[in-house]
Amino acid sequence: MYALVKELYPLCRSITGDGVRETLRRVAAHADIKMHEVPSGTAVFDWTVPREWNIRDAYVKNSRGDRVIDFKASSLHVVSYSAPVKAHLSLSELRQRVFTLPDRPDWVPYRTSYYRETWGFCAADRVMQGLEDGEYEVCIDSSLAPGSLSYGECYIPGATDDEVLVSCHVCHPSLANDNLSGIAVAAFLAGLLSKASLRYSYRLLFIPGTIGSITWLATNEATVARIKHGLVLACVGDGGGPTYKKSRRGNAEIDRAVGLTLATHGGGSRIEDFTPYGYDERQFCSPGFDLPVGCLMRTPHGRFPEYHTSGDNLDLVRPEALADSLGICLAVFDALESNRVYVNQSPKGEPQLGKRGLYGSVGGLAGVRDEMTMLWVLNLSDGRHSLLDIAERSGCSFAAVKAAARALEAAELLKEA
Amino acid sequence: MYALVKELYPLCRSITGDGVRETLRRVAAHADIKMHEVPSGTAVFDWTVPREWNIRDAYVKNSRGDRVIDFKASSLHVVSYSAPVKAHLSLSELRQRVFTLPDRPDWVPYRTSYYRETWGFCAADRVMQGLEDGEYEVCIDSSLAPGSLSYGECYIPGATDDEVLVSCHVCHPSLANDNLSGIAVAAFLAGLLSKASLRYSYRLLFIPGTIGSITWLATNEATVARIKHGLVLACVGDGGGPTYKKSRRGNAEIDRAVGLTLATHGGGSRIEDFTPYGYDERQFCSPGFDLPVGCLMRTPHGRFPEYHTSGDNLDLVRPEALADSLGICLAVFDALESNRVYVNQSPKGEPQLGKRGLYGSVGGLAGVRDEMTMLWVLNLSDGRHSLLDIAERSGCSFAAVKAAARALEAAELLKEA
Amino acid sequence: MYALVKELYPLCRSITGDGVRETLRRVAAHADIKMHEVPSGTAVFDWTVPREWNIRDAYVKNSRGDRVIDFKASSLHVVSYSAPVKAHLSLSELRQRVFTLPDRPDWVPYRTSYYRETWGFCAADRVMQGLEDGEYEVCIDSSLAPGSLSYGECYIPGATDDEVLVSCHVCHPSLANDNLSGIAVAAFLAGLLSKASLRYSYRLLFIPGTIGSITWLATNEATVARIKHGLVLACVGDGGGPTYKKSRRGNAEIDRAVGLTLATHGGGSRIEDFTPYGYDERQFCSPGFDLPVGCLMRTPHGRFPEYHTSGDNLDLVRPEALADSLGICLAVFDALESNRVYVNQSPKGEPQLGKRGLYGSVGGLAGVRDEMTMLWVLNLSDGRHSLLDIAERSGCSFAAVKAAARALEAAELLKEA
Repeated sequence: MYALVKELYPLCRSITGDGVRETLRRVAAHADIKMHEVPSGTAVFDWTVPREWNIRDAYVKNSRGDRVIDFKASSLHVVSYSAPVKAHLSLSELRQRVFTLPDRPDWVPYRTSYYRETWGFCAADRVMQGLEDGEYEVCIDSSLAPGSLSYGECYIPGATDDEVLVSCHVCHPSLANDNLSGIAVAAFLAGLLSKASLRYSYRLLFIPGTIGSITWLATNEATVARIKHGLVLACVGDGGGPTYKKSRRGNAEIDRAVGLTLATHGGGSRIEDFTPYGYDERQFCSPGFDLPVGCLMRTPHGRFPEYHTSGDNLDLVRPEALADSLGICLAVFDALESNRVYVNQSPKGEPQLGKRGLYGSVGGLAGVRDEMTMLWVLNLSDGRHSLLDIAERSGCSFAAVKAAARALEAAELLKEA
Repeated sequence: MYALVKELYPLCRSITGDGVRETLRRVAAHADIKMHEVPSGTAVFDWTVPREWNIRDAYVKNSRGDRVIDFKASSLHVVSYSAPVKAHLSLSELRQRVFTLPDRPDWVPYRTSYYRETWGFCAADRVMQGLEDGEYEVCIDSSLAPGSLSYGECYIPGATDDEVLVSCHVCHPSLANDNLSGIAVAAFLAGLLSKASLRYSYRLLFIPGTIGSITWLATNEATVARIKHGLVLACVGDGGGPTYKKSRRGNAEIDRAVGLTLATHGGGSRIEDFTPYGYDERQFCSPGFDLPVGCLMRTPHGRFPEYHTSGDNLDLVRPEALADSLGICLAVFDALESNRVYVNQSPKGEPQLGKRGLYGSVGGLAGVRDEMTMLWVLNLSDGRHSLLDIAERSGCSFAAVKAAARALEAAELLKEA
Repeated sequence: MYALVKELYPLCRSITGDGVRETLRRVAAHADIKMHEVPSGTAVFDWTVPREWNIRDAYVKNSRGDRVIDFKASSLHVVSYSAPVKAHLSLSELRQRVFTLPDRPDWVPYRTSYYRETWGFCAADRVMQGLEDGEYEVCIDSSLAPGSLSYGECYIPGATDDEVLVSCHVCHPSLANDNLSGIAVAAFLAGLLSKASLRYSYRLLFIPGTIGSITWLATNEATVARIKHGLVLACVGDGGGPTYKKSRRGNAEIDRAVGLTLATHGGGSRIEDFTPYGYDERQFCSPGFDLPVGCLMRTPHGRFPEYHTSGDNLDLVRPEALADSLGICLAVFDALESNRVYVNQSPKGEPQLGKRGLYGSVGGLAGVRDEMTMLWVLNLSDGRHSLLDIAERSGCSFAAVKAAARALEAAELLKEA
């Protein structure tokens, strides 16, 4: 996953354009994604798919012809969706057009202007402070023209049409944690899920933020109701502990499955309530859909200093954090896949576990804990409690509850409700 | 308000009599109140309106003819509802008839005996300790006779017959916080509300405690159901932070509106659960009515040392506390007046706020917070959440939620449900 | 109660056999119990009543003929349900057959093997360490043969067929806290209840653990639904504070009655959630029955070091702890017996308590608290709140609420709903 992050890092992505297409082509090496193109001007709910933006080069040259700001050095140097321009400016005029971070003089900020046509640059404050008076040549060799919005979709069919949605945004340029990390985890999830035997079908979306999810919802409205659970993946590669932001519903099965998974994850995990700000869960959880979709992050947006700056680079993302995020997703999906309601077939008094050889017999778990977990599963399997319910009430891990249920089902003490 | 407290302070009020009438007449200079008289002997639920009590003078004179206890110096010196008496007593006989506070030797206690006919005096313990042996002349020039119970009522009609009740007790003699403070705040509320355009009708009661509210409920039983929200005002003038005691229901709209108001009030506010002791909320919340009426105080009865003593004087009440209590009432009424359920007209995905100029455009609020508040209002306006619900869940102030709803309604993104 | 514990201590009990019968005969001196015998081989749900085990003698002799392990010294020395054996073993062979506690070298552990036929001894580790090499004679003079499972049942009829169940296990040999303490408290409860006028009928079971409750449930299935509340008594004699483990339902009336009782019990009481491990509440709360039965203990099983060892002896049990446990049971039963829903007959406003002489008139309670309790009972007696509800919401003790309700009922201000 880290290698994919590294490979995608230099590309200049935005909400439309060839950078997104190239990103999706490279993701396709890992996940069987289908490319979609939605023409500019398409009405999608309250929005319209914008003109397509492409950029070949951009720079600010000083009077000696040196590129003091250079798009080729980093895609962050141009305000995303900048209109084409070729002009000569005084230093003070130039300053009006360049965003910097005076508090972080070595970092280049990330700025966009998708829906108000303008142009501009972003640069390290230290660079701007070092410029001499004089005339500067500015050039943005971009185009804003009818085209299309591109997104990738990977559909992995399971035993039922009920779907688990995984969504990540692909619109940010050279920013590693936000969100090449999400793209990489989603791509590898697709690879792993495609080899598994699944109850749910999985739909993985690689879409530009906001306009992408709105476009997808608008063009797939008829089948949106199939989505039973979902996760948005964003900023899943930094060194912080995992953070889960609940769906708008707050107690959806996905919220509980992630809650249980993080409860046994070890130090530093956080569960936060839904807010209507953040990533594409904003759209999936809009009141017209109210889908059970939460957001998995590590350090949330805006709470790490490198957020939306050139500091969000390949050093911020850690291979072990990507692996941990992938592992959390797999554990959550395992809980969703395995969550069932069972009925104890010997509900009056405890069944005699000893005569069935069930004491100390569940693979890999310590004996006493095994017994307790089996007793919990038997006690609560009255047709009204799912394995998730049992794990939550008992304090046993979902994995232990699942293993106990399997052992009891094999002994014909449990049947699915 | 403080001037009104000062003006009313010397009058000798009780649960009936001319002191109450004079108080109501002076309140009428600030609020358009209608006087009511309910004859002695009227059966009101389990009670009977008592005989009317009036008092002209009362004193204890020593053998030199000096008034050592003098009603004219403070109305607290006579046990309220004392029967008339004229007698000569030895010092030890006198002591049987005089209540003092040995722990607070300079304060005169407040005592009543409404329903058991007797007579008595109250005095500073230091005064009683200083008396010499000898004969004392005692005189209470009072009358207990058929008459009536007086109360004042100010009705301010709004767009609907649904009512907000404000009630304060007018039966305490020279005690400033308990409850000239409540009378003053209620009087000024009436003045302000009478100039406003209102959704609810407001009914402000100036009534003697217990027997007054029971009398009002008994004589207005047919229309009591119009009361949708209510506040009893008592001890709203001391320097402590505001205290709200919830209605018996505990989660009535009034309870939530006050809760939100105090949550943004700053330090020192308290929310307490209902108890069936306190002021007239006891009667309004009796099980036969169970009205959604809470009680706004500053320091609750019995928790400030001056309570029911001459220490509850004009120094205890602070103009700024009266003003703050008035402001809290107005903020609460604004929440009740403004609380509506809206429906997002663009519920699928977020609407595009930028194209409507809604970013950073809500009057007086900071940009980022504005956006968050608008997103919350849009996200939760699904026909099932009121603005109060939205403020509670989002943590935004009610004022911010209301402003956001107005801006979104003006942009036709919200409609009332 | 302590004398009964002492009397029963030497007997060798197990899940069947003459030790249980002798125990029940001695309990019968205190409680009017009926003996039941259920034949070996009877199918009881998933279980079968086992063969009956009896033991006359058992020992390990060294080469000099000294009994180094002697059943006559303590019934713990033989693994319960040991098959008969007579053999000569080397020291190392002997060690394979003797359980010890190396961490507690002076204590003899308690071990059983009910459902896997084997034999063995238990001894102090220090004794085993002191043995010399040589040949040892082992003898267990026991029998495992068709017979029956014995239990005792005391039924105390009340005004209704609705039952309160009290259950204690009688299968442990010379262990004092676990569970001679429970037997003694149950026996004395039976004696006291049989003299009382009762609303509920009480059923006290003296049964072997697990197989006994399963047998009782299987042979009384038709009338199990009469059980409206229940307590398992176990480990109720040690010096720790009382611990209550809730029923599976978690908010049953028994759970709330014990909760209120312990809330006013003073320091060191604990309320714990249900788990499907412990004593016979496991069976009563199995999903096919889900009876409202909790478990009263002092220090729970496994949390005192003497648990299931010879350290659980007559020194561990304290007369005052037995008395306190008995008192808790009686207070809980009083709450169950007295819990009623009343309707305030003067629900509009407060009734005038003074004219009825109700102020300061409730036997034994302080005046102000009395009034508050009466006001709470009047306020909440709307036909929807029981006295338990009122005690919980008001924070008043159940005893105070009950006394207030009686006084108000006598004054005709309350009627049962």
